[in-house]
Amino acid sequence: MNKKNMPTRLYLTEDETPKYWYNLRADMKEQHAPFLHPGTKQPCTENDLTPVFCKELVSQELNFTDRLIEIPEGLSAFYKSTRPSPLIRARFLEKALNTPAEIYYKHEGNNTSGSHKLNSAAAQAYYAKQEGLTSLTTETGAGQWGTALAMACAFFGVDLTVYMVKVSSQQKPYRKAVIETFGAKLIPSPSDTTEIGRSILKSDPNTGGSLGCAISEAIETSMKTPKCRYVLGSVLDHVLLHQSIIGQECKAAFDKYEIKPDIIIGCAGGGSNLGGLIAPFIGDKIHGRSNARFIAVEPASCPSLTRGRFAYDFGDTGRTTPLLKMYTLGNGFIPSPNHAGGLRYHGMSPIISKLYADGYIEARSEIQTEVFKAASMFAKVEGILPAPESSHAIKAAIDEAVKCRETGEKKTILFGLTGTGYFDMSAYISYNDGSMSDKIPSEQDLQAGFDTLPVV
Amino acid sequence: MNKKNMPTRLYLTEDETPKYWYNLRADMKEQHAPFLHPGTKQPCTENDLTPVFCKELVSQELNFTDRLIEIPEGLSAFYKSTRPSPLIRARFLEKALNTPAEIYYKHEGNNTSGSHKLNSAAAQAYYAKQEGLTSLTTETGAGQWGTALAMACAFFGVDLTVYMVKVSSQQKPYRKAVIETFGAKLIPSPSDTTEIGRSILKSDPNTGGSLGCAISEAIETSMKTPKCRYVLGSVLDHVLLHQSIIGQECKAAFDKYEIKPDIIIGCAGGGSNLGGLIAPFIGDKIHGRSNARFIAVEPASCPSLTRGRFAYDFGDTGRTTPLLKMYTLGNGFIPSPNHAGGLRYHGMSPIISKLYADGYIEARSEIQTEVFKAASMFAKVEGILPAPESSHAIKAAIDEAVKCRETGEKKTILFGLTGTGYFDMSAYISYNDGSMSDKIPSEQDLQAGFDTLPVV
Repeated sequence: MNKKNMPTRLYLTEDETPKYWYNLRADMKEQHAPFLHPGTKQPCTENDLTPVFCKELVSQELNFTDRLIEIPEGLSAFYKSTRPSPLIRARFLEKALNTPAEIYYKHEGNNTSGSHKLNSAAAQAYYAKQEGLTSLTTETGAGQWGTALAMACAFFGVDLTVYMVKVSSQQKPYRKAVIETFGAKLIPSPSDTTEIGRSILKSDPNTGGSLGCAISEAIETSMKTPKCRYVLGSVLDHVLLHQSIIGQECKAAFDKYEIKPDIIIGCAGGGSNLGGLIAPFIGDKIHGRSNARFIAVEPASCPSLTRGRFAYDFGDTGRTTPLLKMYTLGNGFIPSPNHAGGLRYHGMSPIISKLYADGYIEARSEIQTEVFKAASMFAKVEGILPAPESSHAIKAAIDEAVKCRETGEKKTILFGLTGTGYFDMSAYISYNDGSMSDKIPSEQDLQAGFDTLPVV
Repeated sequence: MNKKNMPTRLYLTEDETPKYWYNLRADMKEQHAPFLHPGTKQPCTENDLTPVFCKELVSQELNFTDRLIEIPEGLSAFYKSTRPSPLIRARFLEKALNTPAEIYYKHEGNNTSGSHKLNSAAAQAYYAKQEGLTSLTTETGAGQWGTALAMACAFFGVDLTVYMVKVSSQQKPYRKAVIETFGAKLIPSPSDTTEIGRSILKSDPNTGGSLGCAISEAIETSMKTPKCRYVLGSVLDHVLLHQSIIGQECKAAFDKYEIKPDIIIGCAGGGSNLGGLIAPFIGDKIHGRSNARFIAVEPASCPSLTRGRFAYDFGDTGRTTPLLKMYTLGNGFIPSPNHAGGLRYHGMSPIISKLYADGYIEARSEIQTEVFKAASMFAKVEGILPAPESSHAIKAAIDEAVKCRETGEKKTILFGLTGTGYFDMSAYISYNDGSMSDKIPSEQDLQAGFDTLPVV
C-alpha cells in the first residue's frame, strides 16, 4: 500500500483478528520469581491457588511455556462485539505538534465499561461459567474494573458481588448505577456482610474504606460461598495474558500495513494494559530482532517503578495475598489525596517488574497537571476525552514526538489509550479551574511505605 | 458472501465510505411548506436567513433538488476520526429474544460527545471557519449538542459560546466540564450577558431557565457579535442533510453485504437522527422500489407525531424563529417534569412531518419505564449502555423482533443507536430503584399546548 494513502484507522476484518493470546513469558530468558505462600514463604502451588481462583486461570497463571494460547470460541463471540478495537493514526495530534513522527494509538475505551479492563473481565466470567461456578466476587476502587466485570457477568450469566470502596461509591454514584444496571450486587466496603468488614466497622464506624479492605471482604465472601470464586483485574500474569489481545491486534494491523513501531508507550498502574500492549512485540526485542523501545509511564505521586524497591511484597494493603516479587512502594504506601487519576497501586505486575529489572523496559513518572495538560490537548485535536490513566501515556507520546521534531527523526510511536474519562470529570474540573495541584512523595513518605514491606 | 459467515460488524474501509450527503428532499414528490417570516408571514428568503446562519448552511437549507451533496475534504478528514461508525449485528439480542429476525444497529455514540450530534456540529463548525467567521453561539439543554459543537469548534479553531439552561448546568456539572475542557465558554441561561436574559432575570431572579430563553440569548449574542453566527443541532433541513451520513454508511454496508432492510427504526425528538438514518432508503420507498417500513418512536410524554397537530408553529418557546409547518404540540407545551430522557422538543422536523403526513413513515409513542426496561436488557446482552433517547428505538426494535418470533418471519430490522447514556445515569438510577414513573399528557395538557399555536 502506498504510504500516502494509509488510512487513519487501521482495519482488521474479523478473519484477520487474532485468535490467540500472547503469553510473553514464553519469550523471557528468565522468569519472574515465584509467588510465595504468605504463611510458609514457599513457592505457591496450584493447590494453593485453586481455592481462590478459577481452575483455568490458575493453569494460565502457571503456564510459562506456551507462547500462544487459543481464545475460546464462546469468548471470541463476545470479543467481536467490541473488538478489534480501533487503532488510529493520530494525524491531528501530529499536525498540532508539527512533528515528523507517526503516532498511533490503540483505543480501548470504546465500550460501556470505558476501558481495557473488559478484556480480562470477559475471559474470567467466561471461564467461571464454563467451570460451573454460579457467582464471582471482586473489589473496585475507581470503578473501571467493577463496571467491566459487571458487564461480563451479565453477558455470561454469572452472579456478581462487587465490594466498592465506600468513599468511592459515595463520590461516584453514577459508576455505582452503571454496575447495578448490569445486574451486579454492589456493597460499599467495609460492610457488615463479612467478619473483616464488621471488625473494621467496629473499630472505626465512620471509615471511608480502602481497596485493601474491599479485597479482603471479596475474598472472604468468595471462600464462604459455594461455587464462587474471587477475581482480580490487574497485576497477575493471567490478567496480562488476556490483555495481550490489545498487542496482538496492534501487531496484526501493523504487519498488514507494514509498519514497524520504534517506541511503544503505556501507562502503568498494576501493569495489565502495558503488559498486554507490548506482549507480542517484546519477544522481538528480547531475541534481538527489534530495537523498539518500551516506555512505562506512571504518576509521580505513585512511582513504583521509578522510585520503588524490587522486593517481595503483599499484593494488597490488607496483607492477605501471596507475596509477589515486584517493584513496590510497600503495601502500606498511600498516594497523596490530591492524586486525581487511577494508577494508585503500590506495586507492579511481576512480569513488568522483571522486564524492567532486566532492562527491556524504560520507565518515567509524570506530575498530574502535566498529564491533564496533555489530556486536554489530545481531547481538543483528536476528539476523544481520555481517562486520566491513559493520559500518562499521551504525555510521554507527545514528549517523544516533540523530540522527533527537534531531531528531525521520523519515528513511529504507538501508545495505549486505555480508556475514556467520562466518569472522571471531577478531576478535569479541578484541572480546568486551576485548583489541581501536584504532590510528589518525599523521601520520608517513601520510607514509611518501605517500612511496611514484609521480611522474607 | 455466505450468509452464515456474515461478520458481527459490517465493515466499510475508508475507500468504501460515502463521500456524499444524501438530500432526501430530492426524492420527495411534494416538498414541505416553506418557512414563514414571523413578522410578515411570507416565505423566508435567503436574505432573511443569512444574518442568522452561515451562508453555505442557508444554501443547503434551500436546496431541494440536488440528491447528492459532496462532503468537503476538510470535513471528511475530521469524519475519518470517528467514522464510519460501527454497524453491528445484534446477535446477542436476537438470541435473547429467540427471534428469527435479523437486527442491526448503527452505533453513533462512539465518540466523546456521545451522540450523532457531532455529524452536524462538525459540518457547521467547518463551514463557519471556511466563511471566515471567528465565533459561534448555540444553546444546549441536556448537553449532547453543546458537547458535540464544543468538540467540533475546538477542532476547527472557532470560538464558541454555549448558553446552557441554568438548571441543566447545575444538575449536570460533568457535561459542563466536558464542554469547558473543549475550550468553549459556557454561560448558564438566563444570564446578564443579553438583554433578553437581563429582562427575564429581572422578572424572575430565581428561574432555572428554559431552552426557549437559551435560544433567544444565543441568537441575540450572535447578532451583536462581528463574524459570529448562531447554529442549531436539529429540526432544520441542513441538519438532517449532515445526519444523512448515518444512512449513507448503512446503505453502503448493506449493499456491500447484500442486505435489504425491511424495517428501519429511529427515535424522534427534533428528527435529525431519524431523517439522517432513513435518507438514502426513503427514495426507494417513495419511488416504489422498496416496501421497507420506517418507524419514528417518540416518548409518550412528548408525542408530537402521534398526538400533535400538523400546523405552522414557532421553532422555539421564545417565539422568535421563523414559522415551520410541522407536527407540533404547540411552542408552549412542556413535558411533565418526571420525563427523564431527551426528546423533549415540542415540534418535529418539517421533512419528517411531511413524510409522516404523506404516509411514508409510521409513528408510535412509548412510556419511559418500558423504554428503560428495553435499555437495560440491551445493555446486558449487547454491552452498550444506551442513551434514553436511543432506547425508544430499541424498544420498538424489540417489539418488532418479538412479532417476528410469533409469525416466524425472518425480517431484517435496522435501528439507530444515537448515543450512549453515560451522562444520563440519574435516569437509570430512578429506573433501577423503582422511583421512575410514567405520565402521559392529558387532553387538557395538550389543549394548553395547542392554545399557544400562532395564528397564521
